[in-house]
Amino acid sequence: MKVLVIGLGLIGGSMAWELRKQGHSVTGADASAKNAETARNRGLVDGIATPEAGMQGADLIVIAVPVDAAVRLLPGILDRVEEGQTVIDLGSTKAAIVAAAEGHPARARFVACHPMAGTEFSGPEAAVEGLYAGRFTVICNKDESDPDALATAERLFETLGMKTVYYNAEAHDMHAAFVSHISHITSFALALTVLDKEKNEKDIFSLAAGGFTSTVRLAKSAPHTWVPIFKQNKKYLLDVLDAQTEKLRLFREAIESDSDTDLHALIEEANEIKRIL
Amino acid sequence: MKVLVIGLGLIGGSMAWELRKQGHSVTGADASAKNAETARNRGLVDGIATPEAGMQGADLIVIAVPVDAAVRLLPGILDRVEEGQTVIDLGSTKAAIVAAAEGHPARARFVACHPMAGTEFSGPEAAVEGLYAGRFTVICNKDESDPDALATAERLFETLGMKTVYYNAEAHDMHAAFVSHISHITSFALALTVLDKEKNEKDIFSLAAGGFTSTVRLAKSAPHTWVPIFKQNKKYLLDVLDAQTEKLRLFREAIESDSDTDLHALIEEANEIKRIL
Repeated sequence: MKVLVIGLGLIGGSMAWELRKQGHSVTGADASAKNAETARNRGLVDGIATPEAGMQGADLIVIAVPVDAAVRLLPGILDRVEEGQTVIDLGSTKAAIVAAAEGHPARARFVACHPMAGTEFSGPEAAVEGLYAGRFTVICNKDESDPDALATAERLFETLGMKTVYYNAEAHDMHAAFVSHISHITSFALALTVLDKEKNEKDIFSLAAGGFTSTVRLAKSAPHTWVPIFKQNKKYLLDVLDAQTEKLRLFREAIESDSDTDLHALIEEANEIKRIL
Repeated sequence: MKVLVIGLGLIGGSMAWELRKQGHSVTGADASAKNAETARNRGLVDGIATPEAGMQGADLIVIAVPVDAAVRLLPGILDRVEEGQTVIDLGSTKAAIVAAAEGHPARARFVACHPMAGTEFSGPEAAVEGLYAGRFTVICNKDESDPDALATAERLFETLGMKTVYYNAEAHDMHAAFVSHISHITSFALALTVLDKEKNEKDIFSLAAGGFTSTVRLAKSAPHTWVPIFKQNKKYLLDVLDAQTEKLRLFREAIESDSDTDLHALIEEANEIKRIL
């Protein structure tokens, strides 16, 4: 298969690498010449091209850029897409990109995908082997895609060792807010809080045990990835942020009033996560 | 060395095991007969005794029970302590236990310690090898301990592969609130939020990537450990909870007003944690 991957960061770079190792011919495109060079030097791709040139003769076009750029890019790609070509994106929000494709004559060549995988690092330097294996991919609004395009996307994720599930874009965005996006905000907020409190004594962090490191890990994530996700998923994020603030308030109230009972109840309820994860 | 470890959970059980493997004779005591039996069956200790009987002839007495129980237990242990014996505790808060020892005729045989290590699991089943190696121990109010008792504690942590730092109990509790305790509350609150939001669709959690798992990991921690810690560290926790709530509010405001600039600034500031961790 001939593949074009547009965006050679953690997500696109890791996928390009995996596909290349499977024997596919992988061309990369990246708005940053430096990133493109790093990707080529690391062997993530066979070669570099512009998106336009890279599309020529490609069987699969993978859009792996930040979600705001993906929404801007997709219509132009669909304008140029040829018979038999499949276009997928890998973004963490799906309603906006599905809306960007809506009504386009080539809409059915596009499959909206979200492989639920990542790390706190970004850029082609962060591309890693095995990022996708064992994880889930969500495919959205599958009935809007041609059966053969859908099958191409499904096969791709299968060869990466992933399981595919199907949601509509709106439901995806809601659940993504709850099981992914709010974790990032929580972690960013924790980092801000603790950096503020310890601004004069940063050595203290060397004392921190694994718990702090784990909870604050996502706070290393890049703004160019997450700002557009937060903006596109505004509705559900505002909702879940209010819920999170309310839970913190319950803890505050229980601590303030020295209530063993309330603290026990809150923690025991939170412990339910053990049954699920 | 003859050691008595009181409390054979994650913290005490892991330390007992390590000391036993180093060739020390380790007796365990636990208020739960079941935990004591599990600890003996797992080989964490050489034998089981009551705290009173276990103290006979011990060189070192290690208190590794929840911080409320430690505060209740310490004065009675100091009442019975003999010449040359050293008593340490391993609790996550230090002001209350230092206050509990204050003015006791045997105060100087006690060394207040906090090895900054742990996992989200508890009980003797959770005891693991290598929990302490490479981590820091905080020893508090060291001038209130006899030099030989302090040296015994320092040697202990050194043989476990730990580095020791020194704080007064008040400063310890403040920093512990910032680099450990607030992480636990944040994680508990995140679990509560997400369990609430997804209460009718728990399958969704199988989709979650590593980010959610990492951020919510501490939410598995046991209430009997954490309720007393939160209560003892009330003052600093209320303060840091207010700060955390304010940071969430800033995110909410930036998302609400679609402010790229503010979101970028918040995330970039949070990214500072990269330089530190």
